Amino acid sequence: MNIDGIPTRTLRAHPAQNCIDIIDQTRLPHALHWLRVATLEEAAHAIRSMQVRGAPLIGATAAYGLALALDFEASDRRLAEAAALLRSTRPTAVNLHWALARMEAVLAFLPPAARAAAAWAEAAAIADEDVAQNTAIGEHGLALWRAQVVPRGDVLNVMTHCNAGWLATVDRGTALAPVYAAHDAGIPVHVWVSETRPRNQGLLTAWELDQHGVPHTLIADNAAGLLLRDGKVDAVIVGADRIAANGDVANKAGTYLKALAAADNGVPFYVAAPRSTIDFACADGAHIPIEERDGDELRFLHGIDHHGQASALRQLPAGEDVANPAFDVTPGWLVKAVISERGACAASREGLLALYPEEAGQK
Amino acid sequence: MNIDGIPTRTLRAHPAQNCIDIIDQTRLPHALHWLRVATLEEAAHAIRSMQVRGAPLIGATAAYGLALALDFEASDRRLAEAAALLRSTRPTAVNLHWALARMEAVLAFLPPAARAAAAWAEAAAIADEDVAQNTAIGEHGLALWRAQVVPRGDVLNVMTHCNAGWLATVDRGTALAPVYAAHDAGIPVHVWVSETRPRNQGLLTAWELDQHGVPHTLIADNAAGLLLRDGKVDAVIVGADRIAANGDVANKAGTYLKALAAADNGVPFYVAAPRSTIDFACADGAHIPIEERDGDELRFLHGIDHHGQASALRQLPAGEDVANPAFDVTPGWLVKAVISERGACAASREGLLALYPEEAGQK
Repeated sequence: MNIDGIPTRTLRAHPAQNCIDIIDQTRLPHALHWLRVATLEEAAHAIRSMQVRGAPLIGATAAYGLALALDFEASDRRLAEAAALLRSTRPTAVNLHWALARMEAVLAFLPPAARAAAAWAEAAAIADEDVAQNTAIGEHGLALWRAQVVPRGDVLNVMTHCNAGWLATVDRGTALAPVYAAHDAGIPVHVWVSETRPRNQGLLTAWELDQHGVPHTLIADNAAGLLLRDGKVDAVIVGADRIAANGDVANKAGTYLKALAAADNGVPFYVAAPRSTIDFACADGAHIPIEERDGDELRFLHGIDHHGQASALRQLPAGEDVANPAFDVTPGWLVKAVISERGACAASREGLLALYPEEAGQK
Repeated sequence: MNIDGIPTRTLRAHPAQNCIDIIDQTRLPHALHWLRVATLEEAAHAIRSMQVRGAPLIGATAAYGLALALDFEASDRRLAEAAALLRSTRPTAVNLHWALARMEAVLAFLPPAARAAAAWAEAAAIADEDVAQNTAIGEHGLALWRAQVVPRGDVLNVMTHCNAGWLATVDRGTALAPVYAAHDAGIPVHVWVSETRPRNQGLLTAWELDQHGVPHTLIADNAAGLLLRDGKVDAVIVGADRIAANGDVANKAGTYLKALAAADNGVPFYVAAPRSTIDFACADGAHIPIEERDGDELRFLHGIDHHGQASALRQLPAGEDVANPAFDVTPGWLVKAVISERGACAASREGLLALYPEEAGQK
């Protein structure tokens, strides 16, 4: 996509300099700041602190994190320890585990001296594949919408949650890929963007839609039900952090509430995610670990003060008890279709296996 | 209830001094500030700017606002203009209209010279009745819970939304009245309090529960679905801004989403409100006007800076489009019972008329 009109990906690799550049997403939408990541520890920190976020981008960043680790030492032990550190950063997004397992499978049987170069190459392959997959998701999604979604007005009104756009991937996005495909095809599209408390990833979605010129309106998460009930939404589409083998979907907390409201009002609810987000080894949503994040995400508010400087305010008095689960689980029956790079399918064991028959051997 | 251990109501009337004192709720939970209101215009401003909020407290404040208006001039024209100004402050809460209609009915046929004293007396009656009604709601609600709610653990876990506690009324609260009744009866109770973006009335709920010593945990609005699905909630209870004749409930945006998630997980969902919240003249939820509030409620964040001073930060870049509906409508079939001062009933035309048969003549 473009930033200020200039084409870019969200992750730029510099193998010759042993570093990558990422966008520090904790500073968006107020400041666009590219961050140089040169060590394993910096990569792990970037994922844990959500400087990079979004399941696909987490996977790609972790792959490059492994390459950064092996630049300095490439022993079996170093490889295992680096993978373990990266794996510990976020528990829910399965792409992280998928990318690290793929990297380890390629690297384990290589001699240590060959590992660093192979790691950079494999991470680049993961990043390139992410872009290709998301482009395919956009095309499949748009074809599906043309078949299934009838706008009630002159504009196709799409609701999303959190950020599953190009900022959450290497490029194109997952949930927003069909939105961009529609916009680029000349279809008038407008996006309802929910704030996504407590981390406010909706602001990232608004920012990236603005970069691409897609009309959108920001709402409080609480407003989604009224808009759906009032007929102001033609389709809902979200990404996913993990899809269980039975089609249950773990995604940003609040997704399940939107899915319920969509179902109650006959509005189709779609989940867009690449194959690497589907965990055929995970029987159902009850088996997906849900990350509990720091309560300070609710205790403090972050924005820009009247000097234009990033600043934080205390929202809650000290001592206030807080619970802060980052994800929830949407049962597959609330999902009209999962859209992946191979096409669309029902959010069920049968649907997923019809799209990925080679996984039928998994329990 | 008590503030810092001292019994108080949320509204103190001083007829001899032609003023009332209210708590400036826009400064809670960070500062407890009593605000003196001495004119009609100050009363209207207090309601519009949400220094006082909550349907019952809005009604009582409007009644006193009329008394303040008539202290200086009590002509027919003054009465009509004052009522019109107060009626224009908030569109959704029907208690406002109810209280003003009641005041006008009492005052219209009195000679102007008698109106001011009568207005103070009638406003006091409205306030006293509110407290008595809420106390009854607490008793009816607790009896209903004893019959219908089986806690899954050692503690009764109740979820609420927004603030429908004693801060939203003259005293006791509506939705929280049964919670306080349970707590006072020695039943171990814990409350899940949702933040309630964008105005964060959940912080008021946390503050007032803390004043009464009721254990509670604050969550982002988005987290409600996961908690309900994980069996961590035994009952949900909310207040209402208007209940239509068919049992549809207008309440703070986000209520509908919680009701859907409660229904999907077999958790009973209750609405607590006095008779004055039920609008028998309003056929159904589609006829309830929904207030659209200023988008700056989303554009700016309010909290306390590191000097301990109230401060605001910009969250959204200038020019970002925002929609900010303050309420949504929960269909009556999602509501297990409406709890009012007369008892509990189904959220349906039949249920409401069984409790209020004298309204059967209304269309």
